[in-house]
Amino acid sequence: MILVNGEYKDQIDLSDRGFQYGDGLFETIAVRDGKPVCFDRHLARLKAGCERLLIPFPGTELLTLEAQQLSREATDSVLKIILTRGSGGRGYRQPDIITTTRVLSLHPFPEYPLVYKNEGVVTRFCNTRLGINPALAGIKHLNRLEQVLARAEWSDPFIQEGIMLDVNDQVIEGTMTNLFYVKNNRLYTSSIDQSGIAGIIRGIIIQIGALIGYPVVEHKFTREQLLSADELFLTNSIIEIWPVRQVDNTAFEKGLITEQIQTILPQFYNETIKDDF
Amino acid sequence: MILVNGEYKDQIDLSDRGFQYGDGLFETIAVRDGKPVCFDRHLARLKAGCERLLIPFPGTELLTLEAQQLSREATDSVLKIILTRGSGGRGYRQPDIITTTRVLSLHPFPEYPLVYKNEGVVTRFCNTRLGINPALAGIKHLNRLEQVLARAEWSDPFIQEGIMLDVNDQVIEGTMTNLFYVKNNRLYTSSIDQSGIAGIIRGIIIQIGALIGYPVVEHKFTREQLLSADELFLTNSIIEIWPVRQVDNTAFEKGLITEQIQTILPQFYNETIKDDF
Repeated sequence: MILVNGEYKDQIDLSDRGFQYGDGLFETIAVRDGKPVCFDRHLARLKAGCERLLIPFPGTELLTLEAQQLSREATDSVLKIILTRGSGGRGYRQPDIITTTRVLSLHPFPEYPLVYKNEGVVTRFCNTRLGINPALAGIKHLNRLEQVLARAEWSDPFIQEGIMLDVNDQVIEGTMTNLFYVKNNRLYTSSIDQSGIAGIIRGIIIQIGALIGYPVVEHKFTREQLLSADELFLTNSIIEIWPVRQVDNTAFEKGLITEQIQTILPQFYNETIKDDF
Repeated sequence: MILVNGEYKDQIDLSDRGFQYGDGLFETIAVRDGKPVCFDRHLARLKAGCERLLIPFPGTELLTLEAQQLSREATDSVLKIILTRGSGGRGYRQPDIITTTRVLSLHPFPEYPLVYKNEGVVTRFCNTRLGINPALAGIKHLNRLEQVLARAEWSDPFIQEGIMLDVNDQVIEGTMTNLFYVKNNRLYTSSIDQSGIAGIIRGIIIQIGALIGYPVVEHKFTREQLLSADELFLTNSIIEIWPVRQVDNTAFEKGLITEQIQTILPQFYNETIKDDF
C-alpha cells in the first residue's frame, strides 16, 4: 500500500527530483498495533531535514492523517515516508515554486530472530567509507550509495551488520544503524557532524544515558578504540537495540549497561505514541 | 519522449532503487542532427560507472538502439540516460539478481546566448562544499544533493555557474561543469580522485592539451590560485566550453589557449559520431 500525494499509486513521475538526483529525505518508522512508534520524533527529524535541504515541509497534520490512513489496520509493520523536491527546475536548479512530493508506504515488519536482541549479532568492518560533508551530515537524505556499496560487501547470512568508518578512519555507524559502546563504565557514540545519521533511537538513548547516570559522550574514535570496548550495541527504529557479540574476529559480551538501556527504551515509546492517533 | 526498459512511459515503479536510494548513474548527451555527440565516450563512462557500483551494464548494442530510436528524428536535443539497480533487495542490500532499469529521455536543447561561448560567463564561489569520498569520485552517479544545494544558493540570472570547493578548501568544479585554468602558459584542471565528475569534454581537452603542447596538469588548487589565473573556462557536454569572464568580483580575459581549444574541440566530435548510427 502506497500513498503518493494522497492517492493510492505504485509509480512516480520520472521527472521527480527524487529519482533524478536523490533530491529528498526519508523516514523508516516501526508500526505496532496500528500506531507508528515515536511518530512525533520522526516528523520532527523530517521537518528539520526539509529545512536543511530547503524543501517545503507538507505539515504535521497532513502527514499524520496519511500515516494514520495507512497504519490503522496494520499490525506490526514498517511505515516509510519519502519527501522529495517534486518535479521541475532546470538541471540541478530547483523550480521557483517547489511542490513537495510525499510518498508513504507500508511494508512487512522484518522478522529478526529474537536471539539478535537477546544475545547479540555478528558484525564486520566495511571497506566502503563514508564521505565527509557537514552540509549533509545528520539528516536522513536519499543519497545512499555509500550504504548500498557497503552492504554489497558481504552476503554471509551469519553477519547481520557492517560497521562503517569515514574517509579519515574514524568509526561512524553501521550501514543501517547507529553505534554505541561502553568503556570503563562510560557510554560513547560517534559524533555525526561530518557524516552519519541522527537516528531516532540514538536520540532517545542520549536522553536515557543522562537520566541513568551514563551521559553519552559524542566523539570520534578509531577501529582500535571500538575493539577495546567493554560493551557494544547497535540501534535503529526497527531493530531497536542489538548488542554486538562479534566484530570481525573480536568477541564481546552483552553488558549490564546495554541491558539496562534495553529495559528502559520502551518507556520512551509509550511517552511518544499519541493516544489520539 | 521517455523509454523505460524499451517501453514508452512517463512513470517509474516507486520501489526502484534509483528513487529509494539514488542507486544509479546518468549521462547527459548532446544530440545534433539526430546523432548523439560522443556517444561512445558516454557509453564507456556509463559502463565504467556500472563496474564501480556493481550494476550490470545493459550492453552497448541495446543502449545504442534505444538512443537511436529516440534521437533519429530529433534536431538539437539533449538525451539523458539513467541506469539504476532496479527494484528489490532488502533495505540497502541489493537483490541477489539485479535487473538494471534503463531510462532514456529526450529534452529540448537549452538555448544559451552565444555570448556565453564567445565572450564568457559570470560565476561565483558556492558555499556548499563537495564531500570527499574516493569510492564515488569521478563517476556520474545519482547522489546529487550537493549540486542541488549549491545551485540553490543563487537566483541572479546574470550568474551562469557556481564554482564548488571540497571540504578541504580545494577547488574542484562547477555545479554542472568541469573547470580548467591557464597560468603562465600551462593548462590545469582539478584532479577528481576524491570528489568531482570525470566529464566527457574534460577527457577530450586532456587529449587536446597533449596534442597542442599544453599537457593538462591535474592537481588540487585553492581559491586564491584560481583567482590568479590568466585564463579560465568551464566545460560540459551541452555547453561545450564557456570562458569565464568573472568569478565574484575578479575579472578575466578570454585567452588564446581557451580560443585554440574551442576551435579544435569539434574535430573530436566528428571522430566520435558513428557514421552508421
